[in-house]
Amino acid sequence: MNKNFEFFMPVKIYFEAGASKKAGQYIKGKKVLIISDPFLYHSGIAGQIGESMRGKEVVYFSDVEPNPSCESVDQAALLAREMQADCIVGLGGGSALDISKMVSCLTTNEGSIYDYYVGGSRSLSNRSTTLICIPTTAGTGSEVTNVGVFTNKKAGIKMPMVSNEFWPDYAIIDSVLTYTLPQVMTATTGMDAFCHAIEAYWNKNSQPMCDMLAMGAMKQILSNIESAYREPSDKEARSAMVCASLIAGIAFSQTRTTGIHALSFPLTAEFGASHGTACAITLPAFIKISSQQAGEKMITLIRYLGFETVEEFADAVEQLMQSMKMPTRLREIGVKESDIEHIAEVGLNAAIIQLTPAVMNKETVSSLLKSIL
Amino acid sequence: MNKNFEFFMPVKIYFEAGASKKAGQYIKGKKVLIISDPFLYHSGIAGQIGESMRGKEVVYFSDVEPNPSCESVDQAALLAREMQADCIVGLGGGSALDISKMVSCLTTNEGSIYDYYVGGSRSLSNRSTTLICIPTTAGTGSEVTNVGVFTNKKAGIKMPMVSNEFWPDYAIIDSVLTYTLPQVMTATTGMDAFCHAIEAYWNKNSQPMCDMLAMGAMKQILSNIESAYREPSDKEARSAMVCASLIAGIAFSQTRTTGIHALSFPLTAEFGASHGTACAITLPAFIKISSQQAGEKMITLIRYLGFETVEEFADAVEQLMQSMKMPTRLREIGVKESDIEHIAEVGLNAAIIQLTPAVMNKETVSSLLKSIL
Repeated sequence: MNKNFEFFMPVKIYFEAGASKKAGQYIKGKKVLIISDPFLYHSGIAGQIGESMRGKEVVYFSDVEPNPSCESVDQAALLAREMQADCIVGLGGGSALDISKMVSCLTTNEGSIYDYYVGGSRSLSNRSTTLICIPTTAGTGSEVTNVGVFTNKKAGIKMPMVSNEFWPDYAIIDSVLTYTLPQVMTATTGMDAFCHAIEAYWNKNSQPMCDMLAMGAMKQILSNIESAYREPSDKEARSAMVCASLIAGIAFSQTRTTGIHALSFPLTAEFGASHGTACAITLPAFIKISSQQAGEKMITLIRYLGFETVEEFADAVEQLMQSMKMPTRLREIGVKESDIEHIAEVGLNAAIIQLTPAVMNKETVSSLLKSIL
Repeated sequence: MNKNFEFFMPVKIYFEAGASKKAGQYIKGKKVLIISDPFLYHSGIAGQIGESMRGKEVVYFSDVEPNPSCESVDQAALLAREMQADCIVGLGGGSALDISKMVSCLTTNEGSIYDYYVGGSRSLSNRSTTLICIPTTAGTGSEVTNVGVFTNKKAGIKMPMVSNEFWPDYAIIDSVLTYTLPQVMTATTGMDAFCHAIEAYWNKNSQPMCDMLAMGAMKQILSNIESAYREPSDKEARSAMVCASLIAGIAFSQTRTTGIHALSFPLTAEFGASHGTACAITLPAFIKISSQQAGEKMITLIRYLGFETVEEFADAVEQLMQSMKMPTRLREIGVKESDIEHIAEVGLNAAIIQLTPAVMNKETVSSLLKSIL
């Protein structure tokens, strides 16, 4: 308990079924850019939120792709500058929210994302545009973090970027938006939220407040993810899942993530796995090695979650994933034995991997990956 | 899990043994007013913190009394205005922190606290003075709330005041400052923190995030308060206690408190009990009636804390208080049977009493008070 820590959560959080239709009341200016993926735009969901903003001029950018590219960011930023947006609304999963963060900065910061992102020489200064994030999955947590993950397609690199300017002004959590999530998305994004929670908990930056939040979020996910998966219209389970995702997001916003997320970057960028799949696939293996340096904490956790041993917990998580038809072996997402060394190398480039409570080097990471090949 | 909630915690929190000596780095201007009680001033603790602020002009106000009066606030505000303070540092228990909140506002808001407090006609507008709160007890939680409690001595009324301007800019949690807390303060302020946690948990405004924080804080207090009481230099226990107090503060900052705090106001204002004593004395009785409307939640809580029944939990809390020589009967603090109706009436004037998970009216409150006479 003696560890030093900081806690900083400047995001105003509103949690209410239907709250996305009230977003307009938090916007001071007139001109709003809503950033979403094509599905949310064409299904009319983005439009309904835009129409609820009485008296605002709303423009839509709907070219958000999974694992968003720097090019998409620059394209949306061009639009935001042209229209002189007062507010950027990110609506969607992590991709839309992450783009909205950078776009809200680029309305008042010159140049391209490449000027600020990995290898860029400029740093973002004060953002004056209001930023509202509205998640439509129960998984990203991006609505309460200062992190954006962007993909440099030319270089084939997916890396996170951290900025104090990325904290949204408002996070609006509306479980109604998740009622229509397809099963595969419910499973993968829900397990992503679980990874956020456990990675905050066993993190070398862990701290008591986030431990409490993370434990509660894990319990809530384990109690609700299958109901949300099997009965997509189970409002109670959907509400619990968006709530758990939010709370897991707050937890890891303070600690950052660990090896699971570090290894997910090459698995999505190079093998096309969804972010949630790429994270969850290594989760059981990471649980098994977490006792190396977080033994006592893992005992506290598994008792709280109702398990006897770390192995039993890891197996239960794996079975849960299988029951939701998620891959649990790297071969299932196209990884070959000859890829393993490269995946380990790329994962080891992400600094967060050293926040894992186990020795992380080329040997140990390769061995972990081989164990789930 | 379907309840609506908001979460707003704009305070930047720094938790580190020794952190109070780093407060200067968060201050932009030159002129600092440190507000503390006479003990912290004369013992040199306030001075050490002031001296650590290199290059600042530090002035001290040390006339903070327990249950601070509006007159003290106005007196400190006069000083802050005269010196044109850039930053107000509140150092102490709840009294010093609460005064510092109002003083930081009055440096840029005209008039007296009476113009803004209960019955006043003005409302506080933007505060430009930096506000830093440094608790020296493990109990107040005031460092992370937007509440100040002030006493109108003329009218004999102690009431809380809520303002968005009261959120500190920084909360600096330094367990070292609590190493010299006398036993009676360790006990009473620690039990005050416990009340914050449980009142957040069973509150009608309760919400999942604060539930998790409150449960964790209660567990941490029960595991550490006796060690901190018996062995004042137990650094581990002291650190756990300031941490639990902080977390309990965050929890109740979102929900507010309930009947325990409502009834504490007349017990301190009219019977001179310390705030912690006045709160804790009704705690076991409130635990017993909490199952009226929070039955299921109380079961979850007592299982988590390692008890079988609510009665067993209430008895254990009472025994804990007795083991730390705290009064557990109203007679011990000078209350007579003929006072009970009046105490109930005054308590019922505080709106928060209706956030208790039980019917709260003149009859039920009087009956609760009689049960612990």
